Amino acid sequence: MTLPISLDDVLAARDRIALYLTPTPLRNYPELDDAIGCGVRILVKHENHQPTNAFKIRNGLSAVTALTAEQRKRGVIGASSGNHGLGLSYAGRAIGVPVTVVVPFGNNIDKNSGMRALGARLIEHGEDYDSSVVEADRLCREEGLTLIHSTNNKNVLAGAATITLEVLDQADELDAMVFAVGGGSQTVGAITVLSALRPGVRVYAVQSEQAPAGFRSWKAGKPVERIPPRTIADGVATGSVYDMTFPTLRDRLAGFVLASDEEILAAARTLLRRTHNLVEPAGAAGLAGLSKLGDELVGQTVCIVMTGGNIDEKTLRLVLQ
Amino acid sequence: MTLPISLDDVLAARDRIALYLTPTPLRNYPELDDAIGCGVRILVKHENHQPTNAFKIRNGLSAVTALTAEQRKRGVIGASSGNHGLGLSYAGRAIGVPVTVVVPFGNNIDKNSGMRALGARLIEHGEDYDSSVVEADRLCREEGLTLIHSTNNKNVLAGAATITLEVLDQADELDAMVFAVGGGSQTVGAITVLSALRPGVRVYAVQSEQAPAGFRSWKAGKPVERIPPRTIADGVATGSVYDMTFPTLRDRLAGFVLASDEEILAAARTLLRRTHNLVEPAGAAGLAGLSKLGDELVGQTVCIVMTGGNIDEKTLRLVLQ
Repeated sequence: MTLPISLDDVLAARDRIALYLTPTPLRNYPELDDAIGCGVRILVKHENHQPTNAFKIRNGLSAVTALTAEQRKRGVIGASSGNHGLGLSYAGRAIGVPVTVVVPFGNNIDKNSGMRALGARLIEHGEDYDSSVVEADRLCREEGLTLIHSTNNKNVLAGAATITLEVLDQADELDAMVFAVGGGSQTVGAITVLSALRPGVRVYAVQSEQAPAGFRSWKAGKPVERIPPRTIADGVATGSVYDMTFPTLRDRLAGFVLASDEEILAAARTLLRRTHNLVEPAGAAGLAGLSKLGDELVGQTVCIVMTGGNIDEKTLRLVLQ
Repeated sequence: MTLPISLDDVLAARDRIALYLTPTPLRNYPELDDAIGCGVRILVKHENHQPTNAFKIRNGLSAVTALTAEQRKRGVIGASSGNHGLGLSYAGRAIGVPVTVVVPFGNNIDKNSGMRALGARLIEHGEDYDSSVVEADRLCREEGLTLIHSTNNKNVLAGAATITLEVLDQADELDAMVFAVGGGSQTVGAITVLSALRPGVRVYAVQSEQAPAGFRSWKAGKPVERIPPRTIADGVATGSVYDMTFPTLRDRLAGFVLASDEEILAAARTLLRRTHNLVEPAGAAGLAGLSKLGDELVGQTVCIVMTGGNIDEKTLRLVLQ
């Protein structure tokens, strides 16, 4: 099966974004390993250390740096629950490209104010992410903007894939990686990089039981009907699979598990306590999934990505309960 | 007045520790500037991103890498409320040097378990940091260990000074720096570096009203009698000034302010909300001090150091209240 991007696309993305980002740390915490207790050596990739506190800055920078001069002048638009929008906003400010982000009503207020502070035009529209996508499509045509979809965009996928390139540079050993799946950019990016450079490393996916569209589609071998997401983990609150990532997820994952929102919040608390890093729920889903996989990973070195730290106070209080 | 260390000492420390650490980010958050609201452009130095979540890893690595082969073999000892001990423990594990840390009873439990996880021998002794120092002195003689004092040690000061070297590399503009003072290693390190390289940049200090021995000694122009520290900010909970740093603090600071524990906790909450980084109270004292200095800093670019993120859950709940 053909992957949506190639290793060359990823290497090119790495070169384009290198001017703007430094590698994030990859760390092992003996205390975290002990807390999980299934004999797994856990490598934590600290994407929460990125300037926007989330990996999606890679995606935004990769996409915006690939635009033509004319596209840059006209500006870009994206739909987002926050971190994609923050990544676009950061990239737009860094490169001088006007950015519009459409978010659903009731979106994470910290993420909204972060996008505004970075100079983005923020439009609140619709009840969920999918409605925001429809509005972004409409505005894009009306205003001649370039749409940068959070998943269905080759440069976005290539940006997310640079995480795994860095991990391969940093990890002494690596048997598997576990990714939280929203749109699937990190996961498909990892499969692309690993199949070219380290085909023995397995890739697992995890979603919330309260937003399981990707998991159920993977099980069915085809996209299931939309499932309205009800998870607290806004970073993985997707209701459908995506054209550009689903075939790869369907065919190439070593496994896919679900974790409940309660398990994800507990994982966030464990990460807070054992690594003293602030993590948003989606950023803890990798650890929750790793715990579910338990037996399959005994004695192995497994990488999880702390995808983001943009948690608001209300959710942080839930984590501490 | 002669400084306790020279720029050459700092450059040598930077070279010794470069193998173990990568530069931490220096960032501006427009939202944080707006929240403080006195027209200051704030540069945040993210020492909370260090492997032990605190700047003291620089001090520990600088001291341990400077030991002779014989000293390395015998091992080192230090007294600490936590972050110095974590730095020593990390350095000891990285370099293969046995580490003993003496902590007071009732110390931050996360810091204690962190030191144990890094392989240190942890000894709980006495009611406060100063009692731990006495016990460390005794054990050092009894067991032939090398004592690495958290402040009165040239290599420790040179390690802390590397923060300011990095800031000068990273900052486009810089008018002043505000440091929380426990022992004063960061502050004296900054004065050393700035007086050699950027003498126009002013250095301010801040302490908690609940642990004001340094402030009162600075006001008096000489060390005051010990004041038992009662602050929640364990990283700056010192009751006396230190021989090696006090003369420099006395003569070279542009100013020294106090902030209450309540103001420090409020600053921690502001940092959490506006930067989405976890900060321990001492790590927020710089921002609390900057807010106090307000008028003096209007329109300027001012660096604060997020010194550490090793907050336990109980204290984090206080921050969120």
